[in-house]
Amino acid sequence: MANVATATVITPQDLLIHWQGHRNLTRKVIEAFPETDLFNFSVGGMRPFSLLTLEMIDLSLYGMKGVTTGKWIGVNEMQHSSGNNPLSTKAELLELWDTVTENINATWHLIRPEQFQETMLSFNAYEGTVIDIILYWIDNEIHHRGQGYVYLRALGIEPPFFWDRP
Amino acid sequence: MANVATATVITPQDLLIHWQGHRNLTRKVIEAFPETDLFNFSVGGMRPFSLLTLEMIDLSLYGMKGVTTGKWIGVNEMQHSSGNNPLSTKAELLELWDTVTENINATWHLIRPEQFQETMLSFNAYEGTVIDIILYWIDNEIHHRGQGYVYLRALGIEPPFFWDRP
Repeated sequence: MANVATATVITPQDLLIHWQGHRNLTRKVIEAFPETDLFNFSVGGMRPFSLLTLEMIDLSLYGMKGVTTGKWIGVNEMQHSSGNNPLSTKAELLELWDTVTENINATWHLIRPEQFQETMLSFNAYEGTVIDIILYWIDNEIHHRGQGYVYLRALGIEPPFFWDRP
Repeated sequence: MANVATATVITPQDLLIHWQGHRNLTRKVIEAFPETDLFNFSVGGMRPFSLLTLEMIDLSLYGMKGVTTGKWIGVNEMQHSSGNNPLSTKAELLELWDTVTENINATWHLIRPEQFQETMLSFNAYEGTVIDIILYWIDNEIHHRGQGYVYLRALGIEPPFFWDRP
């Protein structure tokens, strides 16, 4: 029986696949929105889905840069979700999404295996182990994407299946 | 430098803490709903938050039983979310929630360390590694809880902070 402290619960490669599966599903949710609703529609005074996805984009992009280089910016400095971003079409949003997807794939191997258990101060504000930091980004994406599902339902649009990730 | 294939990305104990942190936040979201709205309010024809939480409860309860004993039931046989459950008050829902929380804590150690990478047919229908199966339950909870946040906002109620889990 393996030692519980050194058990391989998940490998770095499988965590990447898990994350990219979620990102693939989120991309389908972006695609499911009519362009106007993507940038304008919301429920209960919340942000439209475009702004929620720009937050995911920034956390992933600047987060991976931080984890792999040690160079962090503050969340208020994030380019796309801080309001300084001129992006205004679904095509631009999807293009940026795909760029981040490729960036994650290209830099994932720079995370040293032992680094997942090391502590960092992410975005100069949130201290945690690297695994906790990365899980936070994934969980935040699932959280806001679930909100996008409600927006779609409120618009009378059937969202993609939750399990349809590959 | 550690071997990438045997890196400890997350320990079984830390995965339990991660899951219970999310469950703690979901409990706060249940508490934030007025009792009537918990059982009746929704957006876009979706299920009320009580039914979403009963799904989380069933997946966690029968899922942990399946993973730790090998005895699975089908999702249509799940007691609480299949419509056969007489539960009708917030207090009953919270009591059931807490029972499941204790059940997870009490049975978690029964998952053998090497089992996370083994394949099972969860709920007699969904094949995957045990880590993928457990992450599915956690992700499903985050997904539906995010929808509960929209319900609360639509009701004019401030939800708990997403990061407030301990």
